[in-house]
Amino acid sequence: MIELPSDPPPSTATAQTAPQPHIAAPVVTIVGVGLIGGSIGLGLKRAGWRGTILGVGRDPQCLQNARRRGAIDQAVPTLARAAAVSDLVVVCTPVDRIAANVAEALAHGPDHLAVTDAGSVKAAILRDLRLMGETAGPRSRNDASAPSRFVAAHPLAGSELAGVEHARDDLFLGRVCVLTPSPVTDPDALERVSAFWTTLGCRLVSLDPEEHDRVLALTSHLPHLIASALAGCITPRDQDFAAGAYRDLTRVAAADAGLWRAILQANRAALDRALDLFRARLDQLRAALDDHPSATRFEHLWNEAAQRRRDWTFDPPGQPD
Amino acid sequence: MIELPSDPPPSTATAQTAPQPHIAAPVVTIVGVGLIGGSIGLGLKRAGWRGTILGVGRDPQCLQNARRRGAIDQAVPTLARAAAVSDLVVVCTPVDRIAANVAEALAHGPDHLAVTDAGSVKAAILRDLRLMGETAGPRSRNDASAPSRFVAAHPLAGSELAGVEHARDDLFLGRVCVLTPSPVTDPDALERVSAFWTTLGCRLVSLDPEEHDRVLALTSHLPHLIASALAGCITPRDQDFAAGAYRDLTRVAAADAGLWRAILQANRAALDRALDLFRARLDQLRAALDDHPSATRFEHLWNEAAQRRRDWTFDPPGQPD
Repeated sequence: MIELPSDPPPSTATAQTAPQPHIAAPVVTIVGVGLIGGSIGLGLKRAGWRGTILGVGRDPQCLQNARRRGAIDQAVPTLARAAAVSDLVVVCTPVDRIAANVAEALAHGPDHLAVTDAGSVKAAILRDLRLMGETAGPRSRNDASAPSRFVAAHPLAGSELAGVEHARDDLFLGRVCVLTPSPVTDPDALERVSAFWTTLGCRLVSLDPEEHDRVLALTSHLPHLIASALAGCITPRDQDFAAGAYRDLTRVAAADAGLWRAILQANRAALDRALDLFRARLDQLRAALDDHPSATRFEHLWNEAAQRRRDWTFDPPGQPD
Repeated sequence: MIELPSDPPPSTATAQTAPQPHIAAPVVTIVGVGLIGGSIGLGLKRAGWRGTILGVGRDPQCLQNARRRGAIDQAVPTLARAAAVSDLVVVCTPVDRIAANVAEALAHGPDHLAVTDAGSVKAAILRDLRLMGETAGPRSRNDASAPSRFVAAHPLAGSELAGVEHARDDLFLGRVCVLTPSPVTDPDALERVSAFWTTLGCRLVSLDPEEHDRVLALTSHLPHLIASALAGCITPRDQDFAAGAYRDLTRVAAADAGLWRAILQANRAALDRALDLFRARLDQLRAALDDHPSATRFEHLWNEAAQRRRDWTFDPPGQPD
């Protein structure tokens, strides 16, 4: 039987000499210890954070690997049990399971528990949580707000590689982490969750959940769909004549189907709008090629995009992506 | 006045102790000394080839930079003059200038001159050369074949960065170089051109010109068009929320507008077919997302592409493309 900490070790947040801000959370539970969850555990260790990391997941083998890699200190069989002894829970499961995991953590955690997540969509998760609140009966809060101690987050880091074996302690260094707090968000939970992501090396940016989903549909979800469509057009034989452009355009096509199906479905409306923009731009470029041979219009469109890309700076100290 | 070699140095091809095959061409002219042409010059030096490299180009500053970087030994003011003293000419100009450069080199070169190119399209260049032959009057060959001493080539390496300052001596190492010889191709020219690209580290593959254009439309030209369309949809403000997927999907959008306008126009028919395939696949994926929540069809399509991408191997010893 796993022995859970009954008396959490003292917080390290009061250590004035610490080189960086550490979260005031002696016990953190990671739900879903794959690439993201595992990198969170390793990142906390790298940052010198000295609390206890509990891991919860459906696959015992994965949890064992996470412990062997040092991403978690202890595997706990149920989220309810882990949440009960935690100060902060970070939910790193696929986006279609996040709302249920958040609700479960809040239902079983202490009053001061703060909960965050790492999901690639935000509005759908918050909507599901509000619906759960409405249908949970008289014991739940009677407004339709999302839970006040849940601070939805999205660290903009990941990889086409899945699993704790690909976790990295520098995955979040220098990356933007979007938070989508609301007027009902508890200030203490917001502070604790902010410190948590900052400890991992993230730069925090607050956005409205719908604005997050609009932007990420363009910068991440649409690119993944495009990568898959492109890779799907090119046969193994034709791949022999592929080089750098193909390599880069299709890298994320190798990502997990289930994870991406859930993300794209959860952000369907914004994805459709992004897709319409993309198709229109593709049509414009194609039509501008007809303007033979000068194609001033084509070069104008191309240069506009080229200049944006050249002006973009992205150099997190960690590795791709 | 530039002093051109009147008595070419002895060929190094007879040196039995040479570590790799060297071309039997004491004087090589590079026409267009940018990223590709410059990398050819540096690559020949890296391979230990000891002939003379002449450079021809429209921009004197660029030729001076090429000489400073050691990519060429000498700049020559006109292609006619350089070709006259060359054993091999490699044309690295934009695809809409290649046919004219090839014809000019052949018109002014010695009988044994072999000519090759590095253009990203093949059928249009060969067609233009045949048309030039037909209209050149009674002194030209009377069949409608492309010139027999021109061996069209396409080394599958490049970069979104332009100019000799980005040239690399390892750009071609381990890369496929497609040759598109025809029944009229001179065997001696074919052998010399083959040895040339092999000296640079390429693996040679022969294809029909139309087959080359069909495959490259999918593996290179379509990805460039997609990259530009995607980058064009994302505003500078939204770019702040971009990470690895955006970085990779849009890298080649920063490529030169004129070069790519010419390539896409020259391969328009194959590009249109590739674009139709891509749109159809995108439509399939989008429609399969409706199949909420299981989306078995979506995951099947996604996994097919993901598996192809994971099975693809690409690890040239040189740097990214």
